[in-house]
Amino acid sequence: MIHRFDQLVVDLPEPSGPNPAAAAAVQELMGGKFGEMSTLMNYTFQSFNFRGKDKYRPFYELICNIAAEEYSHIEAVSAAINLLLNGATPRIDRSKTPMGPSGKKAKDKKLAAKPAAAPKGGKGNPAPLSDPNVTSFYPYHFSGSAQTALPYDGFGNPWNGSYVTSTGNLKMDLLHNFFLECGARAGKARVYEMTDDPTARAMIGYLLVRGGVHIVAYAKALEKLTGADVGRLLPIPSVSNKQFPEAAKLEAEGLHTIMWKWNTSDAFAEIGKIWSGPHPEDGLELEVRNEMPPGFPWPDFPEEPQLCAPGDIDPDMLAHYARKLGT
Amino acid sequence: MIHRFDQLVVDLPEPSGPNPAAAAAVQELMGGKFGEMSTLMNYTFQSFNFRGKDKYRPFYELICNIAAEEYSHIEAVSAAINLLLNGATPRIDRSKTPMGPSGKKAKDKKLAAKPAAAPKGGKGNPAPLSDPNVTSFYPYHFSGSAQTALPYDGFGNPWNGSYVTSTGNLKMDLLHNFFLECGARAGKARVYEMTDDPTARAMIGYLLVRGGVHIVAYAKALEKLTGADVGRLLPIPSVSNKQFPEAAKLEAEGLHTIMWKWNTSDAFAEIGKIWSGPHPEDGLELEVRNEMPPGFPWPDFPEEPQLCAPGDIDPDMLAHYARKLGT
Amino acid sequence: MIHRFDQLVVDLPEPSGPNPAAAAAVQELMGGKFGEMSTLMNYTFQSFNFRGKDKYRPFYELICNIAAEEYSHIEAVSAAINLLLNGATPRIDRSKTPMGPSGKKAKDKKLAAKPAAAPKGGKGNPAPLSDPNVTSFYPYHFSGSAQTALPYDGFGNPWNGSYVTSTGNLKMDLLHNFFLECGARAGKARVYEMTDDPTARAMIGYLLVRGGVHIVAYAKALEKLTGADVGRLLPIPSVSNKQFPEAAKLEAEGLHTIMWKWNTSDAFAEIGKIWSGPHPEDGLELEVRNEMPPGFPWPDFPEEPQLCAPGDIDPDMLAHYARKLGT
Amino acid sequence: MIHRFDQLVVDLPEPSGPNPAAAAAVQELMGGKFGEMSTLMNYTFQSFNFRGKDKYRPFYELICNIAAEEYSHIEAVSAAINLLLNGATPRIDRSKTPMGPSGKKAKDKKLAAKPAAAPKGGKGNPAPLSDPNVTSFYPYHFSGSAQTALPYDGFGNPWNGSYVTSTGNLKMDLLHNFFLECGARAGKARVYEMTDDPTARAMIGYLLVRGGVHIVAYAKALEKLTGADVGRLLPIPSVSNKQFPEAAKLEAEGLHTIMWKWNTSDAFAEIGKIWSGPHPEDGLELEVRNEMPPGFPWPDFPEEPQLCAPGDIDPDMLAHYARKLGT
Amino acid sequence: MIHRFDQLVVDLPEPSGPNPAAAAAVQELMGGKFGEMSTLMNYTFQSFNFRGKDKYRPFYELICNIAAEEYSHIEAVSAAINLLLNGATPRIDRSKTPMGPSGKKAKDKKLAAKPAAAPKGGKGNPAPLSDPNVTSFYPYHFSGSAQTALPYDGFGNPWNGSYVTSTGNLKMDLLHNFFLECGARAGKARVYEMTDDPTARAMIGYLLVRGGVHIVAYAKALEKLTGADVGRLLPIPSVSNKQFPEAAKLEAEGLHTIMWKWNTSDAFAEIGKIWSGPHPEDGLELEVRNEMPPGFPWPDFPEEPQLCAPGDIDPDMLAHYARKLGT
Amino acid sequence: MIHRFDQLVVDLPEPSGPNPAAAAAVQELMGGKFGEMSTLMNYTFQSFNFRGKDKYRPFYELICNIAAEEYSHIEAVSAAINLLLNGATPRIDRSKTPMGPSGKKAKDKKLAAKPAAAPKGGKGNPAPLSDPNVTSFYPYHFSGSAQTALPYDGFGNPWNGSYVTSTGNLKMDLLHNFFLECGARAGKARVYEMTDDPTARAMIGYLLVRGGVHIVAYAKALEKLTGADVGRLLPIPSVSNKQFPEAAKLEAEGLHTIMWKWNTSDAFAEIGKIWSGPHPEDGLELEVRNEMPPGFPWPDFPEEPQLCAPGDIDPDMLAHYARKLGT
Repeated sequence: MIHRFDQLVVDLPEPSGPNPAAAAAVQELMGGKFGEMSTLMNYTFQSFNFRGKDKYRPFYELICNIAAEEYSHIEAVSAAINLLLNGATPRIDRSKTPMGPSGKKAKDKKLAAKPAAAPKGGKGNPAPLSDPNVTSFYPYHFSGSAQTALPYDGFGNPWNGSYVTSTGNLKMDLLHNFFLECGARAGKARVYEMTDDPTARAMIGYLLVRGGVHIVAYAKALEKLTGADVGRLLPIPSVSNKQFPEAAKLEAEGLHTIMWKWNTSDAFAEIGKIWSGPHPEDGLELEVRNEMPPGFPWPDFPEEPQLCAPGDIDPDMLAHYARKLGT
Repeated sequence: MIHRFDQLVVDLPEPSGPNPAAAAAVQELMGGKFGEMSTLMNYTFQSFNFRGKDKYRPFYELICNIAAEEYSHIEAVSAAINLLLNGATPRIDRSKTPMGPSGKKAKDKKLAAKPAAAPKGGKGNPAPLSDPNVTSFYPYHFSGSAQTALPYDGFGNPWNGSYVTSTGNLKMDLLHNFFLECGARAGKARVYEMTDDPTARAMIGYLLVRGGVHIVAYAKALEKLTGADVGRLLPIPSVSNKQFPEAAKLEAEGLHTIMWKWNTSDAFAEIGKIWSGPHPEDGLELEVRNEMPPGFPWPDFPEEPQLCAPGDIDPDMLAHYARKLGT
Repeated sequence: MIHRFDQLVVDLPEPSGPNPAAAAAVQELMGGKFGEMSTLMNYTFQSFNFRGKDKYRPFYELICNIAAEEYSHIEAVSAAINLLLNGATPRIDRSKTPMGPSGKKAKDKKLAAKPAAAPKGGKGNPAPLSDPNVTSFYPYHFSGSAQTALPYDGFGNPWNGSYVTSTGNLKMDLLHNFFLECGARAGKARVYEMTDDPTARAMIGYLLVRGGVHIVAYAKALEKLTGADVGRLLPIPSVSNKQFPEAAKLEAEGLHTIMWKWNTSDAFAEIGKIWSGPHPEDGLELEVRNEMPPGFPWPDFPEEPQLCAPGDIDPDMLAHYARKLGT
Repeated sequence: MIHRFDQLVVDLPEPSGPNPAAAAAVQELMGGKFGEMSTLMNYTFQSFNFRGKDKYRPFYELICNIAAEEYSHIEAVSAAINLLLNGATPRIDRSKTPMGPSGKKAKDKKLAAKPAAAPKGGKGNPAPLSDPNVTSFYPYHFSGSAQTALPYDGFGNPWNGSYVTSTGNLKMDLLHNFFLECGARAGKARVYEMTDDPTARAMIGYLLVRGGVHIVAYAKALEKLTGADVGRLLPIPSVSNKQFPEAAKLEAEGLHTIMWKWNTSDAFAEIGKIWSGPHPEDGLELEVRNEMPPGFPWPDFPEEPQLCAPGDIDPDMLAHYARKLGT
Repeated sequence: MIHRFDQLVVDLPEPSGPNPAAAAAVQELMGGKFGEMSTLMNYTFQSFNFRGKDKYRPFYELICNIAAEEYSHIEAVSAAINLLLNGATPRIDRSKTPMGPSGKKAKDKKLAAKPAAAPKGGKGNPAPLSDPNVTSFYPYHFSGSAQTALPYDGFGNPWNGSYVTSTGNLKMDLLHNFFLECGARAGKARVYEMTDDPTARAMIGYLLVRGGVHIVAYAKALEKLTGADVGRLLPIPSVSNKQFPEAAKLEAEGLHTIMWKWNTSDAFAEIGKIWSGPHPEDGLELEVRNEMPPGFPWPDFPEEPQLCAPGDIDPDMLAHYARKLGT
Repeated sequence: MIHRFDQLVVDLPEPSGPNPAAAAAVQELMGGKFGEMSTLMNYTFQSFNFRGKDKYRPFYELICNIAAEEYSHIEAVSAAINLLLNGATPRIDRSKTPMGPSGKKAKDKKLAAKPAAAPKGGKGNPAPLSDPNVTSFYPYHFSGSAQTALPYDGFGNPWNGSYVTSTGNLKMDLLHNFFLECGARAGKARVYEMTDDPTARAMIGYLLVRGGVHIVAYAKALEKLTGADVGRLLPIPSVSNKQFPEAAKLEAEGLHTIMWKWNTSDAFAEIGKIWSGPHPEDGLELEVRNEMPPGFPWPDFPEEPQLCAPGDIDPDMLAHYARKLGT
């Protein structure tokens, strides 16, 4: 059971303009095999399926807690994609646009720039999504989701359950999780290089830091279980988070040392048995905080009338019903 | 952002014994296109992607809140599957089993009944998962997940993102959700008939009632938006929840009239603008409760050593490392 | 554009009883890569996409005409599956079954034999789909389609568009079609051996003959185009249709020599330029008939109330609405 | 069983030139989950699988009849895609092109404009498909189908059988169909905005009107079955067809009020029990016509020699065979 | 480039009889995400894609060499599956079986036991694949592959390229490979418990040992690269190979300490820089052998005439052609 | 079992520069249903699964031998893709790039030309993969594989096991293989036209010739088995290899008449019973060579530091560990 807060875990800067290419790239971090849907669902199922909780309680709690944090990550990725797609095509309300003669083309054929700036169309018959330089980056964003996020990867393949590994063997699952987080880190670093958009990078920088926490957490868990110094493998890939300015700023604030508690109750009290000691990279002391991180308001996603999103009631139709129904 | 509580939304009776066939059937309610992964993910993405929140706030809050409740449903389905699979194969710890001569088969070849009751094996070389009458119902439960739930449907196809519809058009998305919940209800009713296991049916009965709440909620939402009396279509299919004893019992307690609030804060304050008035089936007054429903402890999932779940450290190995490492 | 006739191309004998295992096997002939969905959709798309019709009209017409016949084959496969599934589980109408106390199990736990013969259940709480010996052959038949056909193969994988080859190169597409029909023939022969059910075999025998016509047609087309004696490769596999009694009977009537015309107009007038001369196996003269074959009534698929198919309106609900609405 | 007519249901204007980006967008209407393959196959399977025909004959006939019409829609979508792709790359016949020295590149490297206008190449070694601005919109159109339609969606995912819902419960299936058509309408409206190509828009305008007929038909069916005023939900999304000039023109002619009969016989005689009364949007009287709509000739799809479609016999090869075979 | 030897890497005992359930279980080791197709293809692609060979030559050679060994593992898995399926259904040659009257059923309806022992059928019309207790374990084995192996997993899902990870980052890819091999080991151990068939277990025992070599190799590689004592994590899961008699026997012979060289040339000369030192479990010295391991003849897979595998030329057909062609 | 040689079967010219669009197109030849993964895996599984080797030994050996050659083809395709992607984005080592103030954008925003020529970035925060004109051709090349090949097709769909046909019926499998090679040839010819890049075309020209050998081999095999003159169908499509300069050059050297032996031993001694007589196109005598073709060194794939491929150890991290560990 969860409480859901209407807040976002990261304060994303408003983009200076739409960037549908960056949105397409960021989709990989949502629905790719190393994306946030994968981290969320792997830990979620592992936590549901945990056998022998009494014996291995700190490990159980760690997986539960990280699973809960991952929810905030699919939120962050969605918010970034949506921000990057706001206004990517001209805002034209077909039901309010005077039409030219049937079939007549708009005078100004190319309505959309790349990205589109301002609604146009005038008296003609608009085609607000018609610029293939915009809409062919990720066709589903335009034909499907009204310029918002979807559980698909960066090349249009849907996230699927085969990306979940839940073997029930604790050492195996912890190794998997450590591997998965490192793979996710590699993916984040690459998408970071695929865009210089400050909104996308702010989000990715945040994910690098918090995903880095998860890497260290699973490394520590494996160390507790076996004595192997897994942390010495880090960072994977070998470029430190400190090299990514947006991440470096957050690590300077110590965000990489904190394990938030995604629960107000006294549950998950044994996480500190794993999350403690020095951080393997910079030696700072790790800390469990008995609170969720501070949240930020979700950014506003304005109406996109050209996609009927959310769509008005057509006034002509309303009038018709009023007549027909006498209401 | 979420708080995650280590509780289950429904109090599932302990099964009298393992029932891997029922567990296989119940998987459809997890990863089928009409399963709980679908309801969870559809509303979750729609809530992330909502445009025009100010104008349509009650609708936004409704979708957020139901999305949060769906999380408790994937928990409930998982718990039921896991309970049904506990002990489905004989519990034999290979690392503690004296071996016969290499390659010699166990004397008692068929170790597992259907379902397996007690561990056997003795001095021979055990094959605890070898009964195809058990393990071929759902091979992944044995080769993959250590007798626990997976995000796959009842015939082994993985849940995937193509099951998510998030068009951004509010009326369209609400219609989708109403349809999806009705389809989910049809699926639940069928899986109910596929087993008479009290654990499975207790879980499904609960889902029928709470899924019924979601059906009514989306019907009410469409009614508010358009004036159409969508509730008159109900129930779909035409057999009432009252005909399922496990559901009838819960409806007698009024559970079908309550919209829980999956948030302690004062968020989602406008849900009552939609969830109000009489229930379309029995006319009882609908009610928003400013609290999450009471939770129950998760059932215990004992160790299944034959699957190394969670798996002990092999004592021989530990001794070896002790020698090698001098620790 | 099509006219659709409410008739079946083959007169299927009523099965002596349900046979869900045979129905599962026959699904391969529907949605497998060599199934009838594949033959239908390959030729349909090739006909839509044909370039250079004037130059190669007889080939175009042949593909169009065979595509049309394939429609009757997905009908035949569906009808056979549905017949085999009629009554496979006990017919119990939950809304008319008096219930015992909530949660109480039916006295007679195993309601369904394999296959189920007669409805049972009495006063208890029935579980008509609960026999895993029946419902685990093909779970979707019970959780999904109400004991009817689906566009999936024999192991639960959905038919998909990657099974369509439409290269636009005529020689290539004809070779593909010849190959596809031979692969389909191999599949039919195997499913024939997977059941001795007279209904399934009558259907498969018919498909062997008519699919054999398509094999010969594509062989002749390749021969016209290139001069190669492709027919000499036949039969593939090497067992003649004459060895399958149900097919042999139809070939004794000459059904393998007839190219029906799936159009009343004078379209497709040039098919005879390809479909002529001796049959490569038995030398009988090939013949184009300017008519569709005689049709047969579709068999009756009775209600399966345990699956709410088609489902009655629940009388209690109706009464409720009558009260509420005053109608 | 079907008769297949070599005609197209809509008279598509010849495009002024190739438009591969529009063709890519239109693929979503073919193989997307809300595309015409889905509407065709859903109703087709539901009609095959209908239980209780005697009791619910008008509903059965309605589904059969709409299924038949959908066939004309996959034709229309294919024809539009093919028209948009005609000539999209330069027409060069490799077997007739004098080659330069091995490996020497064509002088005029960029053979294809966007879209390509006229064949070029001269003495060099042509690369007619080499312009990524053309061929990367939808690679399968060039590597696979010779610039024609395929059963894939707008982002290259194949249509698959999981898009078919056939629950056997009549109310559920009708609700599904109503939902599916609304979803399809949303998709059509979006693809309409993705192009201002008159050919694509003429086709989509036609689909909006006829799909609108199906929406109303399923709404009426649900109303007959339950009394709920489902029609009041329309239009979904809320922009009327009257706002799309190409659709408005057809509705002005009353095309949205006609249920064509896709059968010459007196079958489907009871459709009028559902398709009658006023249209929910403009109140015009609904009408069943005992005939198929008038058809139009399929447009010509000229040879594309650069893709060997349909491909000539290489004269050198023919000469070789003549010598070798003495024929 | 490869040389292919017509030999098998492991000497599999002939099974005492067919075991289609075991064959189905073993498919997971072929086409599952942790199966041998995955290990083969991951290392193969990583070796093709290796950047910076000069700098990291020992790592490159190690991946190349292990990739080559994996080829022998898909052979071993195939051979085991095929052995387990030999004779699983009665051997009846339809073209040589006297037929009863058309449509008459075989007297002895159940031809196949589980597994089938001896061909039957007599004068009737045989149905050699008709025993669902045999053919529904893995339908593709009977409808598709003539009782042999396929690149699918244990529940009928095809192996696919999304199981390949080739990030180009050496540390990441090595971590992936270490993880993949551990996951593969978990899968092998589970399939081992799913059968006590000596043939299957001999094969799996061999894979456990050789897969164990790969685990250690990738652990050593990570250790060389980073200094972390990854080997201390082993074994994963925690049951030692010594507990599996078939594996223990091979480890007693030292097979777990040998890195074979899958190349006769002096290539891969630097592998010893990684494969050296003590084995992390038992401390035995690791050894590179400049030779491929000794091979064994492939077992014989006899004809299965009931599946036309490989299929005779039908004598009647031959006679016909002789007459027709005068040859 | 195989020996693996660290050599490439074709001597590919170094490209004059990166060509990511060509690399994307060539992916179809890797993972498309007609790609080299398909030819490799079809023949590989057929060879593992061959029944009746004694009776049909020449056919068995032919399939084994061609399967082995196909391995060299996935190498060739990979090498070409990798060459085309070398340097496609600017080479910037993030860990060595001085950073500007956190979040500050690089002055020179567009770092990558199409294709990118030289590393830039200076003091700013680089975004080396940020040019969507480069990275959106095939997103996985940049987010996933570090600019190298993957087992996916040209539109991002993974190769999968459903592309393998292994029916066990020899005539059927040979027909399949003949068809598959012709389909592969059609695909090669189209990708050839999709690029004029000399590296891609050299590779494709080679594949056309060697794939042509396989076409003739399977045609000959069918001819031996049945007497049909399958070779007369060739070429499919009808443009001769002689029309492709890169292929013509190789055929002028006779490469199309040679069956290499992918084995040093005296295995596969009976291939000559099939591979003999005149080539069906130009009548040259066919020849079996008891050797593998000469190999060429793999081209060098330089480091791509912007993708951390292969990735250096971050010096700061190393220093940190040195301090921490005292090593």
